[in-house]
Amino acid sequence: MQEAACMAALQRLQPVSHVAVSGGTHGNEMSGIYLVKHWLREPSALQRDSFSATPFLANPLAIERCVRYVGRDLNRTFTKQFLNSKAAWDEPYEVQRAREINQLYGPKGSAQAFDFLFELHNTTANVGACLIASVQDNLLPMHLCHFIQTHCTLGHYPILLYNLPDQEAYSISSVAKHGLAFELGPQPQGVLRADLLTQMGALVACALDFIDLFNKGTTFPAFETEAYRFIGSVDYPRHPDGELCASVHSKLQDKDFLPLRPGDPIFQTFSGEEILYQGHATIYPVFINEAAYYEKKIAFNKTEKCSLSIPALQRE
Amino acid sequence: MQEAACMAALQRLQPVSHVAVSGGTHGNEMSGIYLVKHWLREPSALQRDSFSATPFLANPLAIERCVRYVGRDLNRTFTKQFLNSKAAWDEPYEVQRAREINQLYGPKGSAQAFDFLFELHNTTANVGACLIASVQDNLLPMHLCHFIQTHCTLGHYPILLYNLPDQEAYSISSVAKHGLAFELGPQPQGVLRADLLTQMGALVACALDFIDLFNKGTTFPAFETEAYRFIGSVDYPRHPDGELCASVHSKLQDKDFLPLRPGDPIFQTFSGEEILYQGHATIYPVFINEAAYYEKKIAFNKTEKCSLSIPALQRE
Repeated sequence: MQEAACMAALQRLQPVSHVAVSGGTHGNEMSGIYLVKHWLREPSALQRDSFSATPFLANPLAIERCVRYVGRDLNRTFTKQFLNSKAAWDEPYEVQRAREINQLYGPKGSAQAFDFLFELHNTTANVGACLIASVQDNLLPMHLCHFIQTHCTLGHYPILLYNLPDQEAYSISSVAKHGLAFELGPQPQGVLRADLLTQMGALVACALDFIDLFNKGTTFPAFETEAYRFIGSVDYPRHPDGELCASVHSKLQDKDFLPLRPGDPIFQTFSGEEILYQGHATIYPVFINEAAYYEKKIAFNKTEKCSLSIPALQRE
Repeated sequence: MQEAACMAALQRLQPVSHVAVSGGTHGNEMSGIYLVKHWLREPSALQRDSFSATPFLANPLAIERCVRYVGRDLNRTFTKQFLNSKAAWDEPYEVQRAREINQLYGPKGSAQAFDFLFELHNTTANVGACLIASVQDNLLPMHLCHFIQTHCTLGHYPILLYNLPDQEAYSISSVAKHGLAFELGPQPQGVLRADLLTQMGALVACALDFIDLFNKGTTFPAFETEAYRFIGSVDYPRHPDGELCASVHSKLQDKDFLPLRPGDPIFQTFSGEEILYQGHATIYPVFINEAAYYEKKIAFNKTEKCSLSIPALQRE
């Protein structure tokens, strides 16, 4: 009877033939940049029996300058507002580049779009190797996450769901039919660490193996898993003129994905006072003290833990 | 007899009345920037019986943009060539700013120059809390280093001597009569860690205590100590077009100030090969994989360990 229920829930999806792997969506996140540069010279690592993945550098100008972006954050630019905008002489470089990428690997929401697009990111926060999906509804990325969690032995792989309800997906992978981001940290901007480079390469290899198995007809059983769902963010305490007056508390620093309870310290002011978390429920902070988020007024993102029940999957 | 020899070696220096503490010589090294911003609001922490130290932000434009520099590295700009140059409309911002700083806290080499200038720096390398002096001949900084090593309990404080023989000192502290840099890491560019902020604040407090004791006539006995002397640097392996083809080896990463022996691995190529250290003697690498040094073609700096014998010191 239980088996019948599982069988009933089996979902079928089309094979995945067009796969792209993007590095350097942010031009100072070095693991993805140097993996992609390496694969452009030696593409064999991205070949499988049933497909070959296409590597590309998403923001070449930012990579050249080793900055996150030149005009605006490219990875917040893949919304209809920007993708459907007309070229203007004074538009940020990344708006033009987002349209280009949408033409090459999308168009977003269309039948011609690539089947799968991977994003490679680094953060200065201690997230380990985090798997970021927009929402849980997209079965292929969720099964891919589960495959990595059960087959990749180099670390722990928490799943982060970043889209708020009814929010349009804005990241580069949203131009393809399915997408997933690998977010590895801590790594300083502009620094290439061998350990994270190796781990990111192994993650991509594992992901491509999964897609190859899927294409060959493997049935991936239903499963239950935990994920962390983005629910909002917390800014740094500031003076009236906008200047920071506190840093992330040393007891919160590096504690990404660990529970933060009401009353726990979150900041320490430069005068030595502690600021405590005033929320009413336990949350799981992520991207704690990420360098690129100071300007976004984010000291850390808040997530809640949730349980997911994912049906079985097989190709059509 | 031994005591007499020590007494004979006692050196006397003038009291130290004009002291400055510079943060943000590099605009993305956050510990010094936020300590100085805090002290500008609350200067009492820099006051002692015999003097008050003056905090200042060295590169305001780079700090505003959260970049190392705008036009050129400010901390390589305090040489006669730049300080004596005439203002030009197309000169880098930092050349103009170096002249300003030289007017305010120098002029370099003059009797009017400040007595002591501290530089506050961060690095992405795992140097801990490193004390950087130009050369060992300047007694006051060397005694200050020893005082920190024996009185500051938050860490280990290696001394780094950065000037090559006959090389003109080029850093911001060289405009004053005496100078010392505190270099704390690892901390990503653009990130403020509470632990390093606390440690840097304690280092500056300890240094000001030392100067106050010196001014009040305390005799600081002769001592022997170890230091690391800069002897050169090693670039990343590169493809013929200049692109990196390897990262720092995971066995060298984070091993600043530890011995590197001939035959030890230093790089791993993106294709998986190890590159071994070909030198003939044991060295002590520092600034391993520092973000700001990729463009300077430095994967790590080489130092050799040396023993210093420093005579006793008292004020005149």
